[in-house]
Amino acid sequence: MAYRTTALRIDRDQALRQRILASALARVAAGGFAALTMQALAEDVGIATGSLYRHFHNKGELAAEVFAVASQGELEALQQTLRAPGPPAERLAAGLQQFAARAWHSRRLAFALIAEPVEPQVDEQRLLFREAYAESFGELLEQGNAAGVFRVSHLGLTAACLVGAIAEALVGPLSPPARAAREAGYPAPSLSDVSQALVTFCLRAVGAPLPEKEPQS
Amino acid sequence: MAYRTTALRIDRDQALRQRILASALARVAAGGFAALTMQALAEDVGIATGSLYRHFHNKGELAAEVFAVASQGELEALQQTLRAPGPPAERLAAGLQQFAARAWHSRRLAFALIAEPVEPQVDEQRLLFREAYAESFGELLEQGNAAGVFRVSHLGLTAACLVGAIAEALVGPLSPPARAAREAGYPAPSLSDVSQALVTFCLRAVGAPLPEKEPQS
Repeated sequence: MAYRTTALRIDRDQALRQRILASALARVAAGGFAALTMQALAEDVGIATGSLYRHFHNKGELAAEVFAVASQGELEALQQTLRAPGPPAERLAAGLQQFAARAWHSRRLAFALIAEPVEPQVDEQRLLFREAYAESFGELLEQGNAAGVFRVSHLGLTAACLVGAIAEALVGPLSPPARAAREAGYPAPSLSDVSQALVTFCLRAVGAPLPEKEPQS
Repeated sequence: MAYRTTALRIDRDQALRQRILASALARVAAGGFAALTMQALAEDVGIATGSLYRHFHNKGELAAEVFAVASQGELEALQQTLRAPGPPAERLAAGLQQFAARAWHSRRLAFALIAEPVEPQVDEQRLLFREAYAESFGELLEQGNAAGVFRVSHLGLTAACLVGAIAEALVGPLSPPARAAREAGYPAPSLSDVSQALVTFCLRAVGAPLPEKEPQS
């Protein structure tokens, strides 16, 4: 009996933890990490703030886990495209376009994940995920080199360059100041601008020929 | 008399503030932001922790100011090279090589500035400085386009890509884990590897011809 009670409690704890994370992710998607306060989150979930602290010791720990859950989804979506069958240059272009489009359609969340100033625990996760992204690009670069369509000598460094270029190209257009400028009527890059600039920049950078439709960045 | 006393106090306060910042920078250069604790810093400067808090309300504020002072120096050094006379592609290559070399020779500081997980106030400064870096690259891209040696359509986005690529190429090789790996005898990229990979990546990315000595990244 004692065993079953304990197992039941663990299941319940896990279920509550999942509910907390889902609510936290919804908060970050709507208002960035700035909107993720322990008190507001406890109210969303319908539990006491004290119960929340039993699952996550502080906001940094919670924010880092929300970051990891959301980023893992993005990483897997990208990996699926980069690893699909087809010529390496087309896979790279498709991965970049998909990554930019996903970020564009969840702009607040994407900015939060990539660049929002936040607790150092999230910065730590950012470094880990950037390494994982670089590894995925590194695999593709190796295949492109082998196929004779990429000309890359330093695979790891070049993969890191790609990760940095992608993140930085999106930071500006996704940022809340950019949104305010757009709302005030200032011209701002469109998803198609960002996507095209990124594809041209990255394909050229790895020594691949550009697709015929996009002669310039 | 009252005026002179006040002026004297302001001078003294300014001088102490400068001493604090200089000591703080030395701590970060030696051990990253992790080594920047208010207590250790107060001891370095030879003042009471309370006096330190009169100049900087918390570690985040202090870290952000140390970051800004150090980054401003790096930005100006880069601008000087990017704005020097000469062909745009050579200036871009020289700027990248110089930036990488400076980072390499103050590795701990460079990693702290670029990527060490730290208080959100420093992340805010990072975003501001990345914009300033992008502006400087943007100027050069415009000149290179005008000279017919770069082929860049989206200046701002491409400048951001350059900033991201540079930062990310350096993060791995500069990071404390990379240093530990090097010390343990694992192969790691050299400054020359990083520098060459960056120059090839960035020149190709903006559509510039590569220097003859470096046919591959």
